[in-house]
Amino acid sequence: MSTVYDPENIFAKILKGDIPSHSVYEDENTYAFMDVMPQAPGHILVIPKTPSRNMLDADPATLATLIPVVQKIARAAKEAFAADGVSIAQFNEAAAGQTVFHLHFHVIPRVEGAGLKPHSGKMEDPAVLAANAQKIRTVLAAEA
Amino acid sequence: MSTVYDPENIFAKILKGDIPSHSVYEDENTYAFMDVMPQAPGHILVIPKTPSRNMLDADPATLATLIPVVQKIARAAKEAFAADGVSIAQFNEAAAGQTVFHLHFHVIPRVEGAGLKPHSGKMEDPAVLAANAQKIRTVLAAEA
Repeated sequence: MSTVYDPENIFAKILKGDIPSHSVYEDENTYAFMDVMPQAPGHILVIPKTPSRNMLDADPATLATLIPVVQKIARAAKEAFAADGVSIAQFNEAAAGQTVFHLHFHVIPRVEGAGLKPHSGKMEDPAVLAANAQKIRTVLAAEA
Repeated sequence: MSTVYDPENIFAKILKGDIPSHSVYEDENTYAFMDVMPQAPGHILVIPKTPSRNMLDADPATLATLIPVVQKIARAAKEAFAADGVSIAQFNEAAAGQTVFHLHFHVIPRVEGAGLKPHSGKMEDPAVLAANAQKIRTVLAAEA
C-alpha cells in the first residue's frame, strides 16, 4: 500500500486552480468546496492547503487548524439547508473508502428521515452545485 | 430540538467514573475508550473532557485540542488491528445518527473487504472489548 502524497491528485489540481470547483470558503490554510457526488444536498469537502495524504500522515498542527473550519462550515451548512443535523466523515486509505488521496473532511447536512446516497455515487448537475454553494456562502457572509 | 448539554448523558457518567469503560488513552483534556457496540474490531470513541453536546456547540479550542488525539488513536488502532485503513465519523444531532449527546469522534479500523456493522448495533462481549483495549494501549505504550 502506497502512503505517499501524489501531487497530481484531483484536490491538488483543484487547489492549483487547474480543475474548477464550487467554492464555499477559503482562507490562508484551508479550502472548502462542494462534493460533486453529494450524499445529500449541501455536501461539502473541507481540505488543508498543505499536502497531506490523509489523517494518518498529516501534521497535527494542520489538523488543529483545519477542524475549526470544519466546524464553521458544518454550522453554516446546517443553517443554509435548514438541516436537523450534520454528519462529519473522514476516510483514511482505500479500505476506509478514501478515493482521493488528499486529506478531506466530508460535511453533510442531514434532514430527519432522509437517508444518505452512496459515497462516490452520481455526479450532481453543476447548476445545482453552484446554487448550493451560493446558499452556504450567503450564510457565511452574513456571519462575517 | 434541544441543543442543551445534558450532564447526565452516558459519556459524562463515564468521565466521572460512574459507569465503567474500557479505557485506551487519557490526558488532561481527552479520554478514549472502546465503543461497546463496535462497527468493526477496535472501534474507539475519543471525547473531550469539556462538556460539549457535539461539534456544533463546541469551543473551537476544544476541537483543536481533540483532533490530534483522534489522529494518535487512529494511527495506534490501525497498527494494533493490522488494519488497511481507518474511518473517522462524528455525528451531530439525532438526524445525523448521534445517540449520545456528548461530542465524540468514532475511530474505526478498516480491513480491506470487511464491511461495517450498523452504528449502535449489537453489544460486544466485555472480554473482547478488554482484550482490544489492551492491544491499543500496548501500541501507545510502545510509542511513549
